[in-house]
Amino acid sequence: MKIALSMTLLATSIFASTLAKEASEAGLKPIPASKAELMKLIDNKNNPITDAKVELGKKLYFDPRLSKSGFISCNSCHNLSEGGDDGLSAAVGHGWTTNPHGLNSPTVYNAVFNDAQFWDGRDPHLEAQAQGPIQAAPEMAATKEHVVATVTSMPAYVAEFQKAYGKDVKITFEKVADTIGLFERTLVTPSRFDAFMNGDVKALNKEEQKGLKTFIDKGCATCHNGVGLGGNMNAFNVAAEYKYMNVGDFKGDANGMVRVPTLRNITMTAPYFHNGQIWTLKEAIVEMGRIQLGVSITDAEAASIETFLKSLDGKMPAIALPMLPASSAATPKPDLK
Amino acid sequence: MKIALSMTLLATSIFASTLAKEASEAGLKPIPASKAELMKLIDNKNNPITDAKVELGKKLYFDPRLSKSGFISCNSCHNLSEGGDDGLSAAVGHGWTTNPHGLNSPTVYNAVFNDAQFWDGRDPHLEAQAQGPIQAAPEMAATKEHVVATVTSMPAYVAEFQKAYGKDVKITFEKVADTIGLFERTLVTPSRFDAFMNGDVKALNKEEQKGLKTFIDKGCATCHNGVGLGGNMNAFNVAAEYKYMNVGDFKGDANGMVRVPTLRNITMTAPYFHNGQIWTLKEAIVEMGRIQLGVSITDAEAASIETFLKSLDGKMPAIALPMLPASSAATPKPDLK
Repeated sequence: MKIALSMTLLATSIFASTLAKEASEAGLKPIPASKAELMKLIDNKNNPITDAKVELGKKLYFDPRLSKSGFISCNSCHNLSEGGDDGLSAAVGHGWTTNPHGLNSPTVYNAVFNDAQFWDGRDPHLEAQAQGPIQAAPEMAATKEHVVATVTSMPAYVAEFQKAYGKDVKITFEKVADTIGLFERTLVTPSRFDAFMNGDVKALNKEEQKGLKTFIDKGCATCHNGVGLGGNMNAFNVAAEYKYMNVGDFKGDANGMVRVPTLRNITMTAPYFHNGQIWTLKEAIVEMGRIQLGVSITDAEAASIETFLKSLDGKMPAIALPMLPASSAATPKPDLK
Repeated sequence: MKIALSMTLLATSIFASTLAKEASEAGLKPIPASKAELMKLIDNKNNPITDAKVELGKKLYFDPRLSKSGFISCNSCHNLSEGGDDGLSAAVGHGWTTNPHGLNSPTVYNAVFNDAQFWDGRDPHLEAQAQGPIQAAPEMAATKEHVVATVTSMPAYVAEFQKAYGKDVKITFEKVADTIGLFERTLVTPSRFDAFMNGDVKALNKEEQKGLKTFIDKGCATCHNGVGLGGNMNAFNVAAEYKYMNVGDFKGDANGMVRVPTLRNITMTAPYFHNGQIWTLKEAIVEMGRIQLGVSITDAEAASIETFLKSLDGKMPAIALPMLPASSAATPKPDLK
């Protein structure tokens, strides 16, 4: 009896190790367990992460005064309390304007692992990305001058920039975006999947391991791979037409390529797809099989894959709500128009 | 020399003690230093403060899904990062609608010390107040049914309600508002002024003490008194017409009474007055003297009063950003219309 039990445990453990190897061969990668290894992945060589920069970047991320209206911050659409996005089909911004292409706000958590940013991958990294929505008319609708005037109008912000970058720092729009991007680089959420891939074979239970196997066997890892389980560019709509293809006018980049969304914390980031038309994971899984892989995914298989996906819910970083500096007489006034 | 210095220190100390007594006689009250005394002031006898209720109330306060759009939370207009308000002249809400009466969002910090809530004082306490903006069409635009359906659609919220109120809790709209109100009761910000009033005569420097004396002598404490240095109901526009009287149609309650705003953290809550038309403290001080007290306040006096008011900047509570439960298939969908 004791031997039989040990044999079963051994078999289970061998299955798990084999599965982790298979997942690795399919291109799935864990968030490194070691902080040093993680830093290699997330740091910006040209502007290394420091506590002072990250704290300042957090304040800027939460500050609605960077927007023209004074009402919308980065956190409005990439809400760190809500899985890093807004839970809407298409983003809403200045003047209550929805995204003109019907595009869904992607999560900022683990976005550092993306090969490129935006649905069409037009920006290479978070620092470049951060410049976009601040200036986009249907989002924060600000000018570069507004952002610089706002930040430099508050002595506490100037002092924080000096603390972060040295006394002679020149506060430019790009520096503001760089600092926000640097904060965003720290928003990683290690999960039980990562523990499993890093050698703790018990971190995923049997059902979750079965789900991971189904995920690989069905071909999901063809696009959803790397540390982000997504984040790379891939052709959209390969095998069949997406049934909500006509919602919004987005067709991908010039080559019809679309940035594959991360599957990390996917339970928190409904609705799904670039135009946010799918509200349940099950439907998203079945639909992706049909249109991207040209395979039929049964209800049982979808349920199994969903069980695995839930193991990607990560440990959210502890974030102390920042207290922002008070506006001064020189701070640009909010403009709701 | 030593004796002369001691005499000076003694005189300074006597001046400070006399001033604290004078302030007390003028109706100014500190936030109690003792936690037990503070709890007596802020607790809700019918629904006592507990950690579980406050943590749940915080989540609800930050959850945009309580609104019809899924985009606006209590924190959107009473932003805890921004001094507890939005920095706008008039509040903006659902559909980018500004407050129809041109009313400015009051700060939620220390609002527990108000005798009544809203500019017209129509609600007696924070629990009643919280019901208003959630349902108001130009704010969160939700129905009671939407709120209950949203909260009960998420098992994690239901579990938190049970933890806070017991297994048999009935989750109603009123219970949601009560819980938000309870969280808001904890948002108090003790300042150096409080330390001074509680016996630490060195907590305010000489210039600040001089400012406090001017504040009392000019009559500011006639309305700005109590623990909140404001928060009571008083007649608006007593001596002269406010120059921005015609902005918005607000005329106070049925008796022309208006809730006096708190002066705590006043440096963080510009713009000032019920319609948010005054952007600097100095102008606000001079204008209030003219229209409410019928006195002329010189630039030097205004500067001195401003110096005192800055000592009311309080220690903000440490707030860990809440991570909200994931929506379920049963969660009502956002409706931006």
